[in-house]
Amino acid sequence: MAQLLSCSSSLNTSTCKKSYLKPLDQCSAAFSISVPFKTTRFPFRRLFLREENSKRSRVVRATAIATNQDAPTQSSSGSPQSFGVPSKPQRVMVIGGDGYCGWATALHLSNKGYEVAIVDSFVRRLFDHQLGLDSLTPISSIHDRLHCWKSLTGKSIELYVGDICEFDFLTEAFKSFEPDAVVHFGEQRSAPYSMIDRSRAVYTQQNNVIGTLNVLFAIKEFREQCHLVKLGTMGEYGTPNIDIEEGYITITHNGRTDTLPYPKQASSFYHLSKVHDSHNIAFTCKAWGIRATDLNQGVVYGVMTDETAMHEELCNRFDYDGVFGTALNRFCVQAAVGHPLTVYGKGGQTRGYLDIRDTVQCVELAIANPAKPGEFRVFNQFVEQFSVNELAALVTKAGEKLGLNVQTVSVPNPRVEAEEHYYNAKHTKLIELGLKPHFLSDSLLDSLLNFAIQYKDRVDTKQIMPSVSWRKIGVKPKTVTT
Amino acid sequence: MAQLLSCSSSLNTSTCKKSYLKPLDQCSAAFSISVPFKTTRFPFRRLFLREENSKRSRVVRATAIATNQDAPTQSSSGSPQSFGVPSKPQRVMVIGGDGYCGWATALHLSNKGYEVAIVDSFVRRLFDHQLGLDSLTPISSIHDRLHCWKSLTGKSIELYVGDICEFDFLTEAFKSFEPDAVVHFGEQRSAPYSMIDRSRAVYTQQNNVIGTLNVLFAIKEFREQCHLVKLGTMGEYGTPNIDIEEGYITITHNGRTDTLPYPKQASSFYHLSKVHDSHNIAFTCKAWGIRATDLNQGVVYGVMTDETAMHEELCNRFDYDGVFGTALNRFCVQAAVGHPLTVYGKGGQTRGYLDIRDTVQCVELAIANPAKPGEFRVFNQFVEQFSVNELAALVTKAGEKLGLNVQTVSVPNPRVEAEEHYYNAKHTKLIELGLKPHFLSDSLLDSLLNFAIQYKDRVDTKQIMPSVSWRKIGVKPKTVTT
Repeated sequence: MAQLLSCSSSLNTSTCKKSYLKPLDQCSAAFSISVPFKTTRFPFRRLFLREENSKRSRVVRATAIATNQDAPTQSSSGSPQSFGVPSKPQRVMVIGGDGYCGWATALHLSNKGYEVAIVDSFVRRLFDHQLGLDSLTPISSIHDRLHCWKSLTGKSIELYVGDICEFDFLTEAFKSFEPDAVVHFGEQRSAPYSMIDRSRAVYTQQNNVIGTLNVLFAIKEFREQCHLVKLGTMGEYGTPNIDIEEGYITITHNGRTDTLPYPKQASSFYHLSKVHDSHNIAFTCKAWGIRATDLNQGVVYGVMTDETAMHEELCNRFDYDGVFGTALNRFCVQAAVGHPLTVYGKGGQTRGYLDIRDTVQCVELAIANPAKPGEFRVFNQFVEQFSVNELAALVTKAGEKLGLNVQTVSVPNPRVEAEEHYYNAKHTKLIELGLKPHFLSDSLLDSLLNFAIQYKDRVDTKQIMPSVSWRKIGVKPKTVTT
Repeated sequence: MAQLLSCSSSLNTSTCKKSYLKPLDQCSAAFSISVPFKTTRFPFRRLFLREENSKRSRVVRATAIATNQDAPTQSSSGSPQSFGVPSKPQRVMVIGGDGYCGWATALHLSNKGYEVAIVDSFVRRLFDHQLGLDSLTPISSIHDRLHCWKSLTGKSIELYVGDICEFDFLTEAFKSFEPDAVVHFGEQRSAPYSMIDRSRAVYTQQNNVIGTLNVLFAIKEFREQCHLVKLGTMGEYGTPNIDIEEGYITITHNGRTDTLPYPKQASSFYHLSKVHDSHNIAFTCKAWGIRATDLNQGVVYGVMTDETAMHEELCNRFDYDGVFGTALNRFCVQAAVGHPLTVYGKGGQTRGYLDIRDTVQCVELAIANPAKPGEFRVFNQFVEQFSVNELAALVTKAGEKLGLNVQTVSVPNPRVEAEEHYYNAKHTKLIELGLKPHFLSDSLLDSLLNFAIQYKDRVDTKQIMPSVSWRKIGVKPKTVTT
């Protein structure tokens, strides 16, 4: 760790622009668990307090985290550098590294000792401007984020600003950074967004499919040993009446047996784009020997990770609106502002869920234990299953503990989906690699709710109700927000 | 039929531009079977001879064919107008109606009494210019083709020139023509083309996926009862070690059972684009109630149909080159010019095959028996299975009968595919609807070979060998042909 100490000893956290505006006493119980200084429950407050101390103490703190966490996770074969990956800390390109999962992942990998580059076009921020939406949390520019990270930890994260659908740009990024692994979050990731109108549907599929094709070509041409870690979605499987396996299913039919890709039944143009990606990637693994891991992720909740909690300028985005907000996050905001929880239809829709701290853990596990050349590996990345009704009941119960009177209302389902169905999805492969899951306990729900309460003045209640209908999508561009 | 007689009696076939340059005595044995005037084996010659007679006699001939064939095939329910389709002859839009399968289909449907519109951008003709390729057969412009067809039969085929990826254009075509069915051949349809370089791979997926999305949106917005008949490919299934079913497979797994989409394992960016289409279409059937039939077509061989045989200016294209040529057609040309038959690898690759006369028959059966609203129906559209080695042996044997010394050579397989595998694909649904298959008998092979011999002076032998490698595809655009 000498190198890290030596790097960080010259740092100056005073270059982080903002100091804290609000006390954060109520929001961090669940998030301080793995922070080194466990004597306090308030990481934001802690950092704020430490800013009154000497530069040295602040540096030590950043270094302490790095010292504690900077060894890349060992692979099951005992080395994170198996399969020809160089022995230096791996170089990881995080495409979409400014987004909800991407930002948390980039910081986590940097903190773990990987050399990280973020590739992002910031189109996600543009969507907010176009649709009149905003993160519940105030988020800093990527430049301020990275500056702050460097100041706190001494770790540089390279930044490549551009669109991976433009292959010349991607080429330059690959040639410059020479990644050993690419984590690909750089897709339009909202099902409702893809169902707004024809142009958004087309954009979603074009952007996602062509972007991923470009990444595959870049790997083949410039970094053939590079491991692609691609974010898929559990939504690729739909809701079959049989158990969902991890990517493949062994079928015996008319006396013969084969293991085949698990059948896909996606239910939005977004989810379909991920299905298309999966098929494209599988082909390139077979034809070119690409090594790839498809992380079929469930619904992510939470906002803070160890790293984003280190400073306000590192704060992650938190979406609660009808387009980008995911179910549990949205419910917590609704409870905080006294808005009834909006259950779509019967509420029997069951999905897999995970804490964002498990997202970053899973991605690192995939990187540290890469797929073999030619292998198309699929992990189902979630921790627990809940129906929407179960989530609403959990939020109601947690709200009561905080003195909130939480109501639930059933609204017409804007989606086309089964509202009562069998659901049993396997998710053992990441556990086998070492995932230590965070479960959605009461205490975590309390902290999520407190977090929402803390920021409730920033809530735009007009954005809460579903605004996009699966059945009413039309060809006329929706250019005026209501 | 009064209407048809009345229309056609005013026609003048002298407006067809070309007369025949060559005797075609050897080429038509297999293709005159269903032509009304069975007393002659030579439909081209017959028409040529009749051009020396009066206008009236030519008109009568055209009318005779129409009279014999113009009743749209009855659906199994006794009416081709079931499910709310209007009772007048159906209006069918053939997207890609200038191509190999599209042109034959457009003429066949017109001949059967459907009102037909062709939508085409002619990009297939552009590919030939760009790659230095040409059809074995000389083909007329679409304008001359349609003029000739009108002259011969009195039937007008509307023409919309444009790219369906441009939604404004597609909108105008839909609003103007108001189709009851759309037959969608309008995709880049060559696996090798999609594997030339990155830009062609991206073009193929973008063009095919977005074009089909646009068609789906156009149906939803402007013609919600319109039946989509979409050309898929048997290549979507790959070569699983179990029987291939028609679109769906019933799986019992861990004690539960469901019928799910058959798993897809496509093996080129082209084949993958069709997989993507299938998933997108299935979703819109479920979400919007689109009625769709996916025709997973095998490898098509042959060139003449009853309609294209009526006049030289109606002649279909015939591709034998390494990019667009399909296996059997290419083998016949190779045999005709004394080039060894090029078997890729071990030659155990087995696929489904069908005569182009069955292509047009299948499409009509699908139109006449439309899918129900919300139904995503999948038919496997082929007639017989052959391995490449079996095809080579059949061509060798047929060549011997014609005095040809046919050699076979194994060339390194440019593709990534299993060269020895199990293959048993179901194909009963179109038979149940009434398909009367043409089988690849010796006599048909004779006629195919004779056809190739007739045009052998037009063969560019440089185009025969495979020029595209699945493994060597790169990001640098291939702009110079060799």
